[in-house]
Amino acid sequence: MTESSEFLSHCRTLVDAELERSVPQPDVEPTRLHEAIRWSLFAGGKRFRPAVLIAAGRTFGASNERLIRSAAAVEMIHTFSLIHDDLPAMDDDDLRRGRETCHRKYGEATAILAGDVLQTLAFKLLSTDESLDAKTRIRVIAVIADASGTPFGMVAGQQLDLDAEGRTITIDELETIHSRKTGALIAAAAEVGAIIGGANEFEIAAVRQYAEKLGLLFQITDDLLDVTQSTEALGKTAGKDAAAKKATYPGSFGVDRTRELAGEVTDEARRAISAMDRDTSLLESLAGHVLNRKA
Amino acid sequence: MTESSEFLSHCRTLVDAELERSVPQPDVEPTRLHEAIRWSLFAGGKRFRPAVLIAAGRTFGASNERLIRSAAAVEMIHTFSLIHDDLPAMDDDDLRRGRETCHRKYGEATAILAGDVLQTLAFKLLSTDESLDAKTRIRVIAVIADASGTPFGMVAGQQLDLDAEGRTITIDELETIHSRKTGALIAAAAEVGAIIGGANEFEIAAVRQYAEKLGLLFQITDDLLDVTQSTEALGKTAGKDAAAKKATYPGSFGVDRTRELAGEVTDEARRAISAMDRDTSLLESLAGHVLNRKA
Repeated sequence: MTESSEFLSHCRTLVDAELERSVPQPDVEPTRLHEAIRWSLFAGGKRFRPAVLIAAGRTFGASNERLIRSAAAVEMIHTFSLIHDDLPAMDDDDLRRGRETCHRKYGEATAILAGDVLQTLAFKLLSTDESLDAKTRIRVIAVIADASGTPFGMVAGQQLDLDAEGRTITIDELETIHSRKTGALIAAAAEVGAIIGGANEFEIAAVRQYAEKLGLLFQITDDLLDVTQSTEALGKTAGKDAAAKKATYPGSFGVDRTRELAGEVTDEARRAISAMDRDTSLLESLAGHVLNRKA
Repeated sequence: MTESSEFLSHCRTLVDAELERSVPQPDVEPTRLHEAIRWSLFAGGKRFRPAVLIAAGRTFGASNERLIRSAAAVEMIHTFSLIHDDLPAMDDDDLRRGRETCHRKYGEATAILAGDVLQTLAFKLLSTDESLDAKTRIRVIAVIADASGTPFGMVAGQQLDLDAEGRTITIDELETIHSRKTGALIAAAAEVGAIIGGANEFEIAAVRQYAEKLGLLFQITDDLLDVTQSTEALGKTAGKDAAAKKATYPGSFGVDRTRELAGEVTDEARRAISAMDRDTSLLESLAGHVLNRKA
């Protein structure tokens, strides 16, 4: 195991335990809602955003104890977005992480509510995190709300994605969509880790820049996996982007140039944090991990 | 104009101005999302929950300045729930406050996102309310998150309502559903007003109890209006509860007994705050207003 895959595995264990504590048990009424939440939350996700948050936090010396609730909250927000993105009115996906999507399993109405309430639970968890002082908590909440919302956050990105359906978009438009839909929450995760770690404003900006590149890299490698991997390996429907005529990096640049681009963006991510007087090896190895990911 | 209708009209003006400031302009990208938010947010709502919050706050001497952002945030949460409740997968409503529902006007996908992002914007607004210290802000956020979420909040109530469809439920079950779906946010609004006003814990509990009764009264009078008013007067489809075979107070007790019940619950609401050494006339007149409301 490499350093980064060991770290990711460690984060997954920590985050899963916190999520388990933070959402109602499946036998609590309304049971259908709580089962649906758990179905999507414990579907074998990689916990990539929490790992980014924890890696950034550790870079500035924060303990797991102070990072874990924010990390779990970011994963709840991410899962809420997946559940709603998969809905028939949106991407209409049947398969996610190798099993039925939330609405296929529990029906559309419950899936809408499960997404809604995961967002609520995330803000509840952040507001009640006793390991952080009140000022840190409200700053973290504001950062995550901005990244999740509009006009520069995740939901805005999803709307831009919808607006782009059925027409040809430029690569600049594509990057704007991705930076909001996927990049904003990854950047926020890194920023929150740095804030909790007590980084100064220059360091926070550097870590944000790193994470913006990391988010872009994540999307580029996602597009690459969609054209090069099977549905079985991905755990979601492969080739879907091309079938939906969605703009992608391989579609615009070809697979070879996209692979080169991924390498360049990885270098940019590493460069963003190279001037910091901190041990940035964990963040650097995380970028390498995304570059070489197979799923 | 009575004292309470003047107060409600005053609150509406204040809240509308704050909402106008707090959501992106309709010409900001993604424009479709921001138009959809505004379509539902500025549809002539009564701003009842904000009024409850402001009335409770004033009872303890809080200024409008310290109450208005929380009041607007509660209205955003309420509007998010209306947009999602109206969706085809949920209540499938075409009409709300006398005009097309959000999904009829902007499509299902955008309506889902508009609801999602109103929740996000609410927590953003609460976290950045400079008129409140950080400790007050996180307490307010936690109260509103609990009231909006699960297992005792609004989304849980909506799930229980779905679960009850197509079967006969008892009046106790009906009250459980309403207390979560509608009552929780009204009680939270009152609690938040009292918190911001610096009420002590006994006073906060008394105001909560008042507001729980007020929420019940609101539901009882809602049921009464559904059977006694026309679609035109209501601005939403009348007689829908009976058509959907939903459990209602008039359906269980008849119209006359339900009217009596409304009077009793109004008395209980007033009694809950009668022992407080404060001027509770505003809260009392608000209960009277709900008892006699025509829409």
